Amino acid sequence: MKKPWAGRFAQKTSGAVESFTESVSFDRKLWKHDIAGSIAHAKMLAKQRIITAKESAAIIAGLSATAEAISSGKFRFSPELEDIHMNIESSLTERIGEPGRKLHTARSRNDQVALDLRLYLREQMQDIISLIRKLQKMFMVTAERHQDTVMPGYTHLQRAQPVLLAHHLLAYVEMFQRDRERFRDCMQRTDTCPLGSCALAGTSLPTDRAYTAKLLGFSKISGNSIDAVSDRDFALEFLSCAAIAMMHLSRLAEELILWSTEEFRFLEISDRFTTGSSIMPQKKNPDVAELMRGKTGRVYGNLMALLTLMKGLPLAYNRDMQEDKLPVFDSAETLTGCLSVLLEMLKEVKFNTARLRETAAGGYATATDIAEYLVRKGIPFRSAHEITGRIVLYCISRNIPLTGLSLQELRTFSAALTEDILEILDPVSSVKARSSFGGTSPSEVKRQLRHYRNLLK
Amino acid sequence: MKKPWAGRFAQKTSGAVESFTESVSFDRKLWKHDIAGSIAHAKMLAKQRIITAKESAAIIAGLSATAEAISSGKFRFSPELEDIHMNIESSLTERIGEPGRKLHTARSRNDQVALDLRLYLREQMQDIISLIRKLQKMFMVTAERHQDTVMPGYTHLQRAQPVLLAHHLLAYVEMFQRDRERFRDCMQRTDTCPLGSCALAGTSLPTDRAYTAKLLGFSKISGNSIDAVSDRDFALEFLSCAAIAMMHLSRLAEELILWSTEEFRFLEISDRFTTGSSIMPQKKNPDVAELMRGKTGRVYGNLMALLTLMKGLPLAYNRDMQEDKLPVFDSAETLTGCLSVLLEMLKEVKFNTARLRETAAGGYATATDIAEYLVRKGIPFRSAHEITGRIVLYCISRNIPLTGLSLQELRTFSAALTEDILEILDPVSSVKARSSFGGTSPSEVKRQLRHYRNLLK
Amino acid sequence: MKKPWAGRFAQKTSGAVESFTESVSFDRKLWKHDIAGSIAHAKMLAKQRIITAKESAAIIAGLSATAEAISSGKFRFSPELEDIHMNIESSLTERIGEPGRKLHTARSRNDQVALDLRLYLREQMQDIISLIRKLQKMFMVTAERHQDTVMPGYTHLQRAQPVLLAHHLLAYVEMFQRDRERFRDCMQRTDTCPLGSCALAGTSLPTDRAYTAKLLGFSKISGNSIDAVSDRDFALEFLSCAAIAMMHLSRLAEELILWSTEEFRFLEISDRFTTGSSIMPQKKNPDVAELMRGKTGRVYGNLMALLTLMKGLPLAYNRDMQEDKLPVFDSAETLTGCLSVLLEMLKEVKFNTARLRETAAGGYATATDIAEYLVRKGIPFRSAHEITGRIVLYCISRNIPLTGLSLQELRTFSAALTEDILEILDPVSSVKARSSFGGTSPSEVKRQLRHYRNLLK
Amino acid sequence: MKKPWAGRFAQKTSGAVESFTESVSFDRKLWKHDIAGSIAHAKMLAKQRIITAKESAAIIAGLSATAEAISSGKFRFSPELEDIHMNIESSLTERIGEPGRKLHTARSRNDQVALDLRLYLREQMQDIISLIRKLQKMFMVTAERHQDTVMPGYTHLQRAQPVLLAHHLLAYVEMFQRDRERFRDCMQRTDTCPLGSCALAGTSLPTDRAYTAKLLGFSKISGNSIDAVSDRDFALEFLSCAAIAMMHLSRLAEELILWSTEEFRFLEISDRFTTGSSIMPQKKNPDVAELMRGKTGRVYGNLMALLTLMKGLPLAYNRDMQEDKLPVFDSAETLTGCLSVLLEMLKEVKFNTARLRETAAGGYATATDIAEYLVRKGIPFRSAHEITGRIVLYCISRNIPLTGLSLQELRTFSAALTEDILEILDPVSSVKARSSFGGTSPSEVKRQLRHYRNLLK
Repeated sequence: MKKPWAGRFAQKTSGAVESFTESVSFDRKLWKHDIAGSIAHAKMLAKQRIITAKESAAIIAGLSATAEAISSGKFRFSPELEDIHMNIESSLTERIGEPGRKLHTARSRNDQVALDLRLYLREQMQDIISLIRKLQKMFMVTAERHQDTVMPGYTHLQRAQPVLLAHHLLAYVEMFQRDRERFRDCMQRTDTCPLGSCALAGTSLPTDRAYTAKLLGFSKISGNSIDAVSDRDFALEFLSCAAIAMMHLSRLAEELILWSTEEFRFLEISDRFTTGSSIMPQKKNPDVAELMRGKTGRVYGNLMALLTLMKGLPLAYNRDMQEDKLPVFDSAETLTGCLSVLLEMLKEVKFNTARLRETAAGGYATATDIAEYLVRKGIPFRSAHEITGRIVLYCISRNIPLTGLSLQELRTFSAALTEDILEILDPVSSVKARSSFGGTSPSEVKRQLRHYRNLLK
Repeated sequence: MKKPWAGRFAQKTSGAVESFTESVSFDRKLWKHDIAGSIAHAKMLAKQRIITAKESAAIIAGLSATAEAISSGKFRFSPELEDIHMNIESSLTERIGEPGRKLHTARSRNDQVALDLRLYLREQMQDIISLIRKLQKMFMVTAERHQDTVMPGYTHLQRAQPVLLAHHLLAYVEMFQRDRERFRDCMQRTDTCPLGSCALAGTSLPTDRAYTAKLLGFSKISGNSIDAVSDRDFALEFLSCAAIAMMHLSRLAEELILWSTEEFRFLEISDRFTTGSSIMPQKKNPDVAELMRGKTGRVYGNLMALLTLMKGLPLAYNRDMQEDKLPVFDSAETLTGCLSVLLEMLKEVKFNTARLRETAAGGYATATDIAEYLVRKGIPFRSAHEITGRIVLYCISRNIPLTGLSLQELRTFSAALTEDILEILDPVSSVKARSSFGGTSPSEVKRQLRHYRNLLK
Repeated sequence: MKKPWAGRFAQKTSGAVESFTESVSFDRKLWKHDIAGSIAHAKMLAKQRIITAKESAAIIAGLSATAEAISSGKFRFSPELEDIHMNIESSLTERIGEPGRKLHTARSRNDQVALDLRLYLREQMQDIISLIRKLQKMFMVTAERHQDTVMPGYTHLQRAQPVLLAHHLLAYVEMFQRDRERFRDCMQRTDTCPLGSCALAGTSLPTDRAYTAKLLGFSKISGNSIDAVSDRDFALEFLSCAAIAMMHLSRLAEELILWSTEEFRFLEISDRFTTGSSIMPQKKNPDVAELMRGKTGRVYGNLMALLTLMKGLPLAYNRDMQEDKLPVFDSAETLTGCLSVLLEMLKEVKFNTARLRETAAGGYATATDIAEYLVRKGIPFRSAHEITGRIVLYCISRNIPLTGLSLQELRTFSAALTEDILEILDPVSSVKARSSFGGTSPSEVKRQLRHYRNLLK
Repeated sequence: MKKPWAGRFAQKTSGAVESFTESVSFDRKLWKHDIAGSIAHAKMLAKQRIITAKESAAIIAGLSATAEAISSGKFRFSPELEDIHMNIESSLTERIGEPGRKLHTARSRNDQVALDLRLYLREQMQDIISLIRKLQKMFMVTAERHQDTVMPGYTHLQRAQPVLLAHHLLAYVEMFQRDRERFRDCMQRTDTCPLGSCALAGTSLPTDRAYTAKLLGFSKISGNSIDAVSDRDFALEFLSCAAIAMMHLSRLAEELILWSTEEFRFLEISDRFTTGSSIMPQKKNPDVAELMRGKTGRVYGNLMALLTLMKGLPLAYNRDMQEDKLPVFDSAETLTGCLSVLLEMLKEVKFNTARLRETAAGGYATATDIAEYLVRKGIPFRSAHEITGRIVLYCISRNIPLTGLSLQELRTFSAALTEDILEILDPVSSVKARSSFGGTSPSEVKRQLRHYRNLLK
């Protein structure tokens, strides 16, 4: 097959080069966006009388036929035609002849591929934002159910203070909210149409870039043609947002794995969302959570790949940039896949509320409450902290919980401890008391739920 | 020295642990922010009558004295006191006694360090945004001077089409604009006050978190105490923005290095901003640009460091997070340093306009203009492209530039080529013609300049 | 289809989980290694009388039939069967019945997949080592041809001193030598058979692991079953070696790109190994080199992906580790692809020796020779360096090369400069003189060539 | 202060450039290696009569005095002198006058810094290898003490099969063994002396590089001067080895953290190696392990930093490479620090053997033993696996452990289950039975201990 740029070349491309440089094996994923871009471009060319209305109509009909062929699986992609752009244009010209040879007027593959990738990411980010929103709702529903499930809150993976399970779940809703905002900001910057920047310098033909952009639903057009074809910020920003989102999922995954252990037993994932062992018959493994945690590496790696690629590239377009697609596709699909399976799986997670409550009650999780009690009695925090430390040490050496102390025993540590201290040592009271803004008290949890219910409406 | 949390412990901390876990050797950089946070906190405690007005005044006076001591270099930081927070609190208590022991009421180091880091990054990002703005202005000034300097535009590092130097420079202004926007978005999300979330669960004391936040100039307060102490998204987002900004600088650096070679000779950097060789007396090396390109790796590495650190951490605070500071500090300082030196250096860059023009004129950079000329004459673009390809091949085989062809010779390739083609082959005409939106024509460059002049006012 | 581990499960696996957790879409690449491992395992089981000789023969015949089916494209891989291991075992049992259900005795998928990946990497590294060896030979051949082609050597991308092109090319031979050594070291550590470690604890059945290892060509067997199933060091080490090798290729690619510019014109890549532009008819782009440079990011990203994945995993096997395969496959194939295309392309690179010589002659590349000349005349190096610096400055201000100076002019800088200095300024003499070990003189280049000719025999 | 390369320069270096490009603030760490290299160099120059014996003696005395000054803290490092090399040389010349100006003969900072970094890393790797060896011994000692401590082995963080604690600890000994081997291989490649390669082309002076190398204890000298000054493979390889070693430590850290939780209670770290909370008086946090896990990110980031830096650099030395030092220093110190503190801390870890044994006994960890029992009775593994799965499901539904089943109940699942099955369900028997090579049986653990005792002698 003849290359579209063969004119200046005396020799045929080597086969080794063809297979090394082709991208249609992966950029075919952009076919819809490429055709959408070409249709808008053809309409603009006709409106500006660069081609005739008839030619434009032929092109649009031809592209639609090609789209039909691709979506029905009948299209044969040729690696010799290098990329999705040339595959589609070549099929168009085969189909409609001469007018097909006019489509590439006033554009270049440099601006065309920048357009396609932006259209792809716009679509992906819409999906991702919507999936995260659904996930937030799912967490809300679960949180609503657990407004009185007390559990131990952890720092350093040591039991720290009693908290409500609802409060813990809402921490993820906050993370997801930031993820959504980040993707939204990234969409703002992705929402710029580069088409018409041509190879790097614009064109001498009387194009109307604003018209093309409008047809494609962009709200801005790129202001500098050199930048427009060499910019991949939007892809890097997307990969950063995806990496941070995956980090959140890895933390959630870690907790699902930990909480499923026989040691924690805080929750059980249904049989439908766990898998077994090929050798140990009793195993029930939280594979989905493990894989999600593992996939975090992949999304981090993709970010690193594109950052490395872009480092030190002189302006404008360089062929290195063809390698931008795989990391972007892979991160988008990995994130979408994780969010989707999570939405299904969380429905099948059963919290062991009895175990959670019992765990919150044992041990010394309410020690801070003693300290704050003493502060309210006028003792400086540092002294209150020390007194409580001594009480805890005393209990440990006797192997009893805080609730195992009598008032007399307590008062040997500080005379400020009076009868009312006893009810404070109960985790439910402890939780109830922490009603500072954003704290774990039922009232504050209700406020958070209200806030997100409004936000997610 | 006694640890503030020693109450519950039967043995002294090992010296090896002290030096392994201490952070004051690097987090002392946060002393200003830590003191500002403590002052606001003390005011709030007094307003809420958790401490008395007198105690609050003593605390504020004490903290001011400590600030004074630190800024005058008289403060002795103790690693045994672990971190900047304990160093400052301990000095306060030494100074003012009892009231000092009340400062840590209703907060924890977990929310305190999250606050400090946010205050630090807010400040750094303000600086960075302002430096980028100055850099944009510097590029604008240079661009204004070079509105008629024609040069070869490159793709694949091969001469592609003539462009204006001003247009090329404005490509960087666009990149920097996106950097500023990204940092501004990141500031939005950094602008949330976590103080008062305490260890992870909030407090039972009657705090007024909104008041503290207002004193510290925050517009939002964190809504979930567990998330507030385990969230480092703002730092990750900052590191991502910094990595992308450094990528831009690495591209600029690459061009400065390339353009300084004897082969390109597009510009000269003054003696004041180059350095020599310890062995080769003739050398004049673009070290600043090289270092800037090299430092890109460092900023990428910092991003990877924090992403790795956060991966899979269960909620809420874990000590791993102490390691968030060095990558953040290093990226902030590296970026600030690069931007600052660049601002100085660019003043000392002299473009070799004669060489730029001459380079734009030789070769085949206006070939695309022939193709677009033919399109205007009604020839389909693909055919026009092929005809031009053949013309170029003909010139190469005869070793002549496009301008070396006579009209007759040209017409052997296509009858559509008439007299007016000759002036089109001139790079100045070529540039003038590319007046599509965002193109390289002088009119479009003027439009961009106008746009940014308004924006940067 | 019934899961092999379904016994303990009350519910069917969710479809969402199946598609999220399946790996056969990518680990099918390991089919040959999986079957080879199973055949060796079956032989061992029979030798140890854990199964009968007849059963073993049936298994081997069945596996061979499955291998046949896969290699001829007739095998239908089922995602419901999760992975390549279960796909093959299930097909075996379908084919031969009962004995197939005995194959998985005394092994687990945990040791099985560790085996498969080691076998795959052993094979890949053999290929890579052999490709690098060929590349070294190709560089040697080219170096042999260019033993008297003088060119400017660069530091800071500024012309530094004249060197032989052969010497420059041999620098890459050194890099590749280290790459080969590193891969060889990695192969040593990959050459350990994990099969028989079972799930994590070994087995109570009387296996002979040494026998299996011998059949599979391993020289060592793993010593600790827990480590054996949770170790991916060999994969990480491979990814590190691949990243460093790609870094070398990225440097070579950078030079190919730079040297192909119209500014350098040091070499030309044939039409067969360059591609054109869809819009600029005159372009001839070094795409292969650019893509190679770009693919560096991908291989770096893969290393980061697996490092991240392995971070903080408790022992022993965790499902996260399923995600080890894609980065390993991708790096192996990317590196192999780059090396292969390079081998083809370098044949088609033509050095412009006239241009190289002329460039070496102009400018001040022999300034160091003046300094060394002065040292030989007894002047301390620092003084010699200063004197030469002044000479260069003088030439620059007059815009003349060093060879443009008369002896008289030279002597105004130092009386130590006598007649013989003049010939020293010639780049050929300069090169000849640098005969220190490893230096650029023809004699030293010959020595290097001899050294590598012996080594690569 | 006058720059050593000022000769050719008409203007003074800008202050902004000086502080941006200086490296003495961090490369001063190389002072010992720089001086050692210079002393060897001076000896060689004298031996080759390039300088006189007297000059050489003066230089050596001067350098020794400088070394004295630095180690006693009296030396004043000047950033204006750029780097450690110039700081030392300048101080030398100040001290001894003229001969000092001869030291830099036949070398360049390019080969000098490559030498220094190799000397530094050789030293660091010796330390690291020795620390790892000590750590292995410490694990051995602990393992020897726990040869009959049965515990649950985990996969997917679910209890899988009983193993010996000694066996689990020995898995780390294996990892550390590979770490040592990798560092040893890296040392082999670091053990090449680059000094005498000069700027990039060697020298015309009659040096004896083999002599210098011998004085410095190198076994090889670099064969190609261009490669010698542009090669950082040894540093990248070191960073890769360090990253993999930190990954191992992060897994150990994760287990220390998990096993310290109140949920696992498998071990307790002494008060001396844990820290408390500034707000929660009862907390005892495994900070050392957490920090170690967190520092993994830092070491990964350093690797990424240098890989990025080196990407696409044309030969030979570029100033970017100055940025190689910080990541190398930081990784060496981080790894050394973690290994050292670990050595101390592990002494203070107390395993809760009662809890470990009890945990191994409960649940279904010996289910695989039933399956293997059935295999021995002639039932195909897949059938045995299914039967056992059903037994486990039956126990779960009745909430009893495997040992809670009577023989009668067991026989309802398979007639092949006879009396002897009962003793098999005991974790101690289970462990004893797994005597396949590398398995967890006491005999195999003894074999491993023997193996390592020999190896570490």
